[in-house]
Amino acid sequence: MGLEINSWKPKIVTGEFGYTLEDVPHLSDYIPNLPTYPNPLQDNPAYSVVRQYFVDFDDTVTQKIVVHKDTPRGTHFRRAGPRQKVYFEPDDVHACIVTCGGLCPGLNTVIREIVCGLHHMYGVSRVEGINGGYRGFYSRNTISLTPKSVNDIHKRGGTVLGTSRGGYDTKKIVDCIQDRGFNQVYIIGGDGTQKGAAVIFEEIRKRGLKVVVAGIPKTIDNDIPVIDKSFGFDSAVEEAERAITAAHVEATSTENGIGLVKLMGRYSGFIAMHATLASRDVDCCLIPESPFYLEGPGGLFEYIEKRLKENGHMVIVIAEGAGQDLLSKSLLQSANGQDASGNKLLQDVGLWISQRIKDHFSKKRKMEICLKYIDPTYMIRAIPSNASDNVYCTLLAQSVVHGAMAGYTGYTSGLVNGRQAYIPFHRINERQNKVVITDRMWARLLSSTNQPSFLTTKDVIQANEKTKALQMVK
Amino acid sequence: MGLEINSWKPKIVTGEFGYTLEDVPHLSDYIPNLPTYPNPLQDNPAYSVVRQYFVDFDDTVTQKIVVHKDTPRGTHFRRAGPRQKVYFEPDDVHACIVTCGGLCPGLNTVIREIVCGLHHMYGVSRVEGINGGYRGFYSRNTISLTPKSVNDIHKRGGTVLGTSRGGYDTKKIVDCIQDRGFNQVYIIGGDGTQKGAAVIFEEIRKRGLKVVVAGIPKTIDNDIPVIDKSFGFDSAVEEAERAITAAHVEATSTENGIGLVKLMGRYSGFIAMHATLASRDVDCCLIPESPFYLEGPGGLFEYIEKRLKENGHMVIVIAEGAGQDLLSKSLLQSANGQDASGNKLLQDVGLWISQRIKDHFSKKRKMEICLKYIDPTYMIRAIPSNASDNVYCTLLAQSVVHGAMAGYTGYTSGLVNGRQAYIPFHRINERQNKVVITDRMWARLLSSTNQPSFLTTKDVIQANEKTKALQMVK
Amino acid sequence: MGLEINSWKPKIVTGEFGYTLEDVPHLSDYIPNLPTYPNPLQDNPAYSVVRQYFVDFDDTVTQKIVVHKDTPRGTHFRRAGPRQKVYFEPDDVHACIVTCGGLCPGLNTVIREIVCGLHHMYGVSRVEGINGGYRGFYSRNTISLTPKSVNDIHKRGGTVLGTSRGGYDTKKIVDCIQDRGFNQVYIIGGDGTQKGAAVIFEEIRKRGLKVVVAGIPKTIDNDIPVIDKSFGFDSAVEEAERAITAAHVEATSTENGIGLVKLMGRYSGFIAMHATLASRDVDCCLIPESPFYLEGPGGLFEYIEKRLKENGHMVIVIAEGAGQDLLSKSLLQSANGQDASGNKLLQDVGLWISQRIKDHFSKKRKMEICLKYIDPTYMIRAIPSNASDNVYCTLLAQSVVHGAMAGYTGYTSGLVNGRQAYIPFHRINERQNKVVITDRMWARLLSSTNQPSFLTTKDVIQANEKTKALQMVK
Amino acid sequence: MGLEINSWKPKIVTGEFGYTLEDVPHLSDYIPNLPTYPNPLQDNPAYSVVRQYFVDFDDTVTQKIVVHKDTPRGTHFRRAGPRQKVYFEPDDVHACIVTCGGLCPGLNTVIREIVCGLHHMYGVSRVEGINGGYRGFYSRNTISLTPKSVNDIHKRGGTVLGTSRGGYDTKKIVDCIQDRGFNQVYIIGGDGTQKGAAVIFEEIRKRGLKVVVAGIPKTIDNDIPVIDKSFGFDSAVEEAERAITAAHVEATSTENGIGLVKLMGRYSGFIAMHATLASRDVDCCLIPESPFYLEGPGGLFEYIEKRLKENGHMVIVIAEGAGQDLLSKSLLQSANGQDASGNKLLQDVGLWISQRIKDHFSKKRKMEICLKYIDPTYMIRAIPSNASDNVYCTLLAQSVVHGAMAGYTGYTSGLVNGRQAYIPFHRINERQNKVVITDRMWARLLSSTNQPSFLTTKDVIQANEKTKALQMVK
Repeated sequence: MGLEINSWKPKIVTGEFGYTLEDVPHLSDYIPNLPTYPNPLQDNPAYSVVRQYFVDFDDTVTQKIVVHKDTPRGTHFRRAGPRQKVYFEPDDVHACIVTCGGLCPGLNTVIREIVCGLHHMYGVSRVEGINGGYRGFYSRNTISLTPKSVNDIHKRGGTVLGTSRGGYDTKKIVDCIQDRGFNQVYIIGGDGTQKGAAVIFEEIRKRGLKVVVAGIPKTIDNDIPVIDKSFGFDSAVEEAERAITAAHVEATSTENGIGLVKLMGRYSGFIAMHATLASRDVDCCLIPESPFYLEGPGGLFEYIEKRLKENGHMVIVIAEGAGQDLLSKSLLQSANGQDASGNKLLQDVGLWISQRIKDHFSKKRKMEICLKYIDPTYMIRAIPSNASDNVYCTLLAQSVVHGAMAGYTGYTSGLVNGRQAYIPFHRINERQNKVVITDRMWARLLSSTNQPSFLTTKDVIQANEKTKALQMVK
Repeated sequence: MGLEINSWKPKIVTGEFGYTLEDVPHLSDYIPNLPTYPNPLQDNPAYSVVRQYFVDFDDTVTQKIVVHKDTPRGTHFRRAGPRQKVYFEPDDVHACIVTCGGLCPGLNTVIREIVCGLHHMYGVSRVEGINGGYRGFYSRNTISLTPKSVNDIHKRGGTVLGTSRGGYDTKKIVDCIQDRGFNQVYIIGGDGTQKGAAVIFEEIRKRGLKVVVAGIPKTIDNDIPVIDKSFGFDSAVEEAERAITAAHVEATSTENGIGLVKLMGRYSGFIAMHATLASRDVDCCLIPESPFYLEGPGGLFEYIEKRLKENGHMVIVIAEGAGQDLLSKSLLQSANGQDASGNKLLQDVGLWISQRIKDHFSKKRKMEICLKYIDPTYMIRAIPSNASDNVYCTLLAQSVVHGAMAGYTGYTSGLVNGRQAYIPFHRINERQNKVVITDRMWARLLSSTNQPSFLTTKDVIQANEKTKALQMVK
Repeated sequence: MGLEINSWKPKIVTGEFGYTLEDVPHLSDYIPNLPTYPNPLQDNPAYSVVRQYFVDFDDTVTQKIVVHKDTPRGTHFRRAGPRQKVYFEPDDVHACIVTCGGLCPGLNTVIREIVCGLHHMYGVSRVEGINGGYRGFYSRNTISLTPKSVNDIHKRGGTVLGTSRGGYDTKKIVDCIQDRGFNQVYIIGGDGTQKGAAVIFEEIRKRGLKVVVAGIPKTIDNDIPVIDKSFGFDSAVEEAERAITAAHVEATSTENGIGLVKLMGRYSGFIAMHATLASRDVDCCLIPESPFYLEGPGGLFEYIEKRLKENGHMVIVIAEGAGQDLLSKSLLQSANGQDASGNKLLQDVGLWISQRIKDHFSKKRKMEICLKYIDPTYMIRAIPSNASDNVYCTLLAQSVVHGAMAGYTGYTSGLVNGRQAYIPFHRINERQNKVVITDRMWARLLSSTNQPSFLTTKDVIQANEKTKALQMVK
Repeated sequence: MGLEINSWKPKIVTGEFGYTLEDVPHLSDYIPNLPTYPNPLQDNPAYSVVRQYFVDFDDTVTQKIVVHKDTPRGTHFRRAGPRQKVYFEPDDVHACIVTCGGLCPGLNTVIREIVCGLHHMYGVSRVEGINGGYRGFYSRNTISLTPKSVNDIHKRGGTVLGTSRGGYDTKKIVDCIQDRGFNQVYIIGGDGTQKGAAVIFEEIRKRGLKVVVAGIPKTIDNDIPVIDKSFGFDSAVEEAERAITAAHVEATSTENGIGLVKLMGRYSGFIAMHATLASRDVDCCLIPESPFYLEGPGGLFEYIEKRLKENGHMVIVIAEGAGQDLLSKSLLQSANGQDASGNKLLQDVGLWISQRIKDHFSKKRKMEICLKYIDPTYMIRAIPSNASDNVYCTLLAQSVVHGAMAGYTGYTSGLVNGRQAYIPFHRINERQNKVVITDRMWARLLSSTNQPSFLTTKDVIQANEKTKALQMVK
């Protein structure tokens, strides 16, 4: 990320019995004498009945909740919610929202609820959408967002703002923010995007601008650390189950039928794992975190043959990032003098492994199999969010708005143990959340599919050490 | 509940800094010198790679996680999961499962996973289903349950065991348990059922039987305290959203169209509240916790008229237990000399309020309205559980099995702040979970619908006092 | 209908071997010397490749297609489709669309495709929607309809134009048509609406206006004669199946469980019959065409008891118009001195029969049953049309547009033996289509449900005579 | 097909005014003096009320129904349905059912309804399923089929009998039929399968066996001639629409977004065409019947660029058999010295064209596009049939059973102009049904998508000539 020397330092507050609060930045950290205003919510009829509506300044959310009698209290995060005092007058707020990266169910709901939250709760009327991701800040017109214009968008998949990936110029973005006078910037996107948000925040801080930079973590893969789960994940797993059901039908309808489903998950296998657990029709689930091998005893081919002989069919789920080491080795071997486009296709692990399985059984085993490959990726990403994600997106959006109005900045809003909290960017960005294959959830999966663990004793020891190291960091 | 004098006393363990553990009973509490056995999971290949698979005896789950630096640590529950030692040999286990009360998405998944969990994790092969609820213990044949016979049941709604409500004879049930030699009794049901389970546990304890009584709380209304949410709730809200969408289409297609949807919730309005928040098409949500009135200023009729004049249509969601006081008054007034069956129908708050709204506008206001009433109750209850509920039911079932094998009894398994825990019956049964109308979630709803709060200042004060009282108890 | 003496006379053309064409009116029937124009489609690139795109003037569609070697050829209708010559210049067309009566899946698709058909095929840009049904002609502003404004409406249920039932003033409607200069009037609605369209056509003809009146028959009940099926019917049956599945789950989950589903069908039981055949979970299907009785041998109560004893559960489907004679008798008996609103509810046959069944088994038979009543009516009506209905609505809308441009009037567009045809109003309005209970389709249903036919020999003879009489008319 | 010299000759009956009946074979054609029995349906209570239940021997169904006053009457087929006399006693029937080829929604419904039809209508209890397609006759155990065992199979996708493609030995099949004593053979499968059925019938006829061979045409592609549509087609189109919706969401959410959906249709583009018409979100639909080219003026690349510039996004639907000439040329060019597996993948037209589009825009146009490719094939094939297909499958199955009991053989059951008819094998097998690109349905599609026709004048003339030639044959 290349943050400079005098970049923002984590704000750590400690207390008795091992209590630690990892606080988020605040506009007043670098701008002195900011005026405050009473929160307009206190005159809002809907909220007037709410006993102690405003979050107590000292409220924090516990991260570690499986404890012993004598465990130290550990890390806490600032609780999200409305504050007694706000740092913006409604008429002065000029907010903008940007969505970056791949599609994920719920994007439109988050957009809708930021707009409606700002409007209905705080009386803010100037909200604009940045068109087409980060680059849109300086290369496109903005899209005006009103409660009316966003009224029905949560019923549609995708993002009404458009999105993009990759290259952009941070300086130009901050220039644009400054020139157009945006003072609340809501950034919805995955880990790359949140890292970008951290850099934008840093630049804004350096320029001393009264501009809030707030992130809403978006990742259909659920690979963001600290938070319970990312929005859209439930909807994605639900839709993934449909593909698995189809694969199961195909597999059971032919002799030696194999249904193979590729699911999202470049670096982490959460969708594959949850869809497998939800469906219960899967015989083998392959994820990036759990290395596997194809040939020889204990390998995938042996297991496939065993299942086909026992059951006559099988269903395999593979996350897109699984088996990358095998794949690159294999592509390397065959890389001489060939058609680039065919090779490119084989970089899709689903197509590649389909081919490998077919080749193995036709050439080596002279066994007729019937493999059907399903890649539902874009059908999953594009669905509208389901009911529980809709509620979740609403809370997320309202929390992020409360934080911005209260002058917090450089934070993402997220669910920690079921409570909305504000988390500093660096905690979200420092690593990726991964399926811990020495944890009970993965054991449950292994127990449900009966697949081999593909692990040697050495692997287990290594995995355990890695996990312990991670735990220490926590 | 009328427990007798020498009934079970809560097991409370305390620690530093205000730490309290509300522990669950254990067979060894009343049976001395029980032998233990090594947990068979340690030889299970799926689990062998799991670092520290077994739950540490001292692991507990924190209930209160919004804290201040100096807040005492508060209540904890025993963490669920497999233990190093178990109190049953697999061959000795004779388990039974019973489902009671109304249908709820996920019942079959819970049944399936108890059977598969006992079988795959612990090698237990004798599991029987009780047919038709509590009474089935002594009046029906049991249903043999094997991994094969339950393999696909999670794809169907309802319960394969059948269910019933109401009257049963505790003594006969315990006689049957004793006579048939069941030693693990899994009871899936709502608050009445869990109270029954507590009495059964008490009777078993008195008889000194080595029989585990374990509950899995089931309530589509989500009205069970302590736990995060009950299984099937997500699925129910998702399906409820469909009915609201239909009501919205009907309402917007006619002049002065009113779409009225009745949802489940006899004593608590969680489904109505969440479906309203998820859908965003609702103009008014009426729940049991929030009293309302029809006529006069600030009343429902006035609000309806206002919305129709502004928008030309409106959608109302009403929980089945809302407005019960109004309803009984109204039925009392008209109770002289009339047809019983018509009157009985009016005890359905949806039909009753439809009638009242129609009468008001046709007679008093001479205003033509077009009201469409939808009661999706049985369509909601009967759906199969969605993906996230399937995963949840799996964890719930595996947790309850681990607890039983470890000799715990008189507990329910439940999610506390996202972690599986064992909770003593009395904590589940002591009160019903309700929507707190002076809390932020309800304020969110009011803000989203813009409906009146129907509250006088007096109401607010009372509500606040009630909440405070509850908080003290917590 | 009370048409006056010099009203329109059916145009009948006859040919060899018993050939009859029941033709539709044409503007030139009552306006002499109308100019014609070449059809703009011939310059449309999409159509330029179509061999013989224009419908031959002599093309007709055969109604009777189950024939013997020597059967006379019978009735034919004019084939729908584009004509070589049109009677309007695109710039002169001023079209309007009105939707009347209850909701039905596909209304928005038909609206969309009339607008797009006029625009894309004929270059017509002035199309307006009448707001809120017939009365909207003279009491509301119109809604401007463009391809852009209707682009996504087919994905939503309901009608974007709004609808209403009942009273309106034909003269005022025709005045409005004349005053505003509409010259193509598209009327989407059920049998009442089509009768209204016939009167409007008659008035326009009398005034000698160059105004096309074209109907698109809409009835979720599928009770329109001549045509194969009405749009939205497939979608409705598909959604009805969901309710039956839920009823089946509820019924099978309790002892003596009865799932009762009320479906649409005031005068005809097509939805009930098709949903029963599609679902195969139904034990008894009650429709208006097939009288039944409750008590005594061969009655419904006896059959219910029999099924419960055999199977432990049953599913009943009842069309809303079934058993009306029983219902009115029953309400009459209990009509003295009672609450009107309760009684009104009992006019809902589903609620009434639920009550009767419950009373019978609790009072007379002292048998505990558990009845769950589902009324999915408004959830069915409000869904968007499914794929096959979308295609059907498209063809229907394009056909009606081609007819109007070609100067035909006083017709409805409809599918006859799978071919689009123009049918004169009187053939659509002269009677209602009904399930013929002495026909094979109903026999299939009886055979699938095993329900009693509830028919005495006398009934059969009468039914046969009625059918024969109908056949003669045909 | 290689039928031998003395093979079956079409049975043609002619009548006045150009009437022709293309009759189906009958057991009595080659077995003299077969006894007949009264149809047991006449004692079936469900059917006893049906006026003239039995099909008149002379009933035929008209094929050509768009006629002129003086058109000759043309081809007819024998009407399906129960006959007064049957050629089997229920106890003597030994039926078998086989499913071949790819999956298609509705297979299980057809199986279920043949079993239930034989059982409930005719009292036949010996029905067996052949496991795994044609080869299963001689290489596998049969599966016993009873009304109970098939009760719920229509709710599942796939086929409970299993299926296979390709090579089998006709003689062995007929030997098996003879050895096991099957006398009614129901064959469900596509055009290859029906050709096989014709050969099996021929062999059986030659051996003089009293064995009925009856086909039920199955093709998700809807490419069977004579019949209105094949079962499962509606369900497939409905599911295909979901994929198009997802592609549309993906395309509209990025700059220059292209959503590409491959649908089934090796030789005919019906699914692609209907899904495009149903969805209305498609900008370009490519089918096997309509040749197209990529580069140069009027080519696909040009059109894509135009749409992206106008709209910013586009959706393309391609049938799997479209552009095969381009594809083979392209593969040939690059076939030297390369990896076979990569090349094999490119034989998937969807992957191939995705690659070509990407290459074109990145290399030639230096234009950044974002293409998302969706292949929902196996998700579509594997769904259970929807409600309208369920009803259709029921009628189809009952018709085929009536025909077999009546002694007809060598026929397929199919819908002709909405009526069930028996069609001789050769009419089903003589050619494939294709989208006629000079017909109005395709013009409708072109008009809806605004895509270029990709046709030169020469193409049009050729296409017209081909169509005329086809018409002559008809």
